[in-house]
Amino acid sequence: MDSNYPGFLIVLEGLDGSGTTTQSGLLARYLREEGYSVVELEEPGGTELGRQVREILLEDRGVGIEPLSELFLYEVSRAQMVREKVIPGLKKGKVIISDRFAVSSVAYQGYGRGIPIDRVKSLNEIAVGGLEPDITFYLDIDLHEREKRSAGKRPDRIEKEKQDFYRRVREGYLAEIKALSDSVLIDGSSSKKEVSRKIIERVEEEIVDPG
Amino acid sequence: MDSNYPGFLIVLEGLDGSGTTTQSGLLARYLREEGYSVVELEEPGGTELGRQVREILLEDRGVGIEPLSELFLYEVSRAQMVREKVIPGLKKGKVIISDRFAVSSVAYQGYGRGIPIDRVKSLNEIAVGGLEPDITFYLDIDLHEREKRSAGKRPDRIEKEKQDFYRRVREGYLAEIKALSDSVLIDGSSSKKEVSRKIIERVEEEIVDPG
Repeated sequence: MDSNYPGFLIVLEGLDGSGTTTQSGLLARYLREEGYSVVELEEPGGTELGRQVREILLEDRGVGIEPLSELFLYEVSRAQMVREKVIPGLKKGKVIISDRFAVSSVAYQGYGRGIPIDRVKSLNEIAVGGLEPDITFYLDIDLHEREKRSAGKRPDRIEKEKQDFYRRVREGYLAEIKALSDSVLIDGSSSKKEVSRKIIERVEEEIVDPG
Repeated sequence: MDSNYPGFLIVLEGLDGSGTTTQSGLLARYLREEGYSVVELEEPGGTELGRQVREILLEDRGVGIEPLSELFLYEVSRAQMVREKVIPGLKKGKVIISDRFAVSSVAYQGYGRGIPIDRVKSLNEIAVGGLEPDITFYLDIDLHEREKRSAGKRPDRIEKEKQDFYRRVREGYLAEIKALSDSVLIDGSSSKKEVSRKIIERVEEEIVDPG
């Protein structure tokens, strides 16, 4: 385990439509059936303050949001979630599953919006206070697949971005995940069941049996 | 002028009750009468996004807000205001008056909440992108005066803090203002008129006559 706490922090990352939310839910259900105490979180969100920030970030209220303000908003949510939910949960030995975490800002606000990567990472570092996930799954889908899956859905403020934005975000994810030690790239275009099986297999290998 | 823009950035700082809002208004009125184009801003706030953040920060909704999340929220408002209002205004040669700015976070979130001062300053630096006020007025009042002035008013979330918090904030202000080159300490317990006269006198000395 990377953290010095008895718990275990699992992060799912990927483009919108890659299935992070679905897979977080499937993993949580599996782990609960296995007897683990699980906390499901999401970014932005995860706390009451995070949900207020999420509304500002994702609802397209026609409010101007500069890239740097957007990044700071994510860091508000992240800083709060780490201190209010993640660390207390890890201390109690819980398994925390977070639907996105710090790498998202590197991909979206860094590669996507063009904020210098080092700057994003240094703000992330302050927000998470040095905490690192025990394992990060990146569910990779290509832009064609993303487009297909988002068809017919009402896009939020960020999802309205153009293909070229998502091309940069995906490139960012691929570069960052490759550089991360405790990360697993999974083909997110496989079936829901197949992706879930791969995630669970790997989590079983990593997690210390609580019994 | 500190900035490389034709405009002029004036900041008023001080504890709650020190009169920054009143004095910003009086200064703006005076400068407008003198023919300047003036933009009045406040922190947190100054933009639509800033006002949404202000609500979260000051309305006591019973939402937990960690000191670091609080700091990030101020930086959201600051980053947005600098890019949406301050820099465009300065470029057009306007006089921008901001009721609080970056030093507030050093005093309140740094000295007051206990976040390391260097950390607050480095986040400020990112948020303002190196922009410095042309002049900063600090309206100093002691804790007794603050208490007296806030009596009978409904305090916001931050104003509910105890005397000891404000003692640290004032100490922080005094230290920071002393270290700042373009700063003026004014006795905020003088009459409204007297404080205004001192501010206007100094602004007249500093500002380049637009005629």
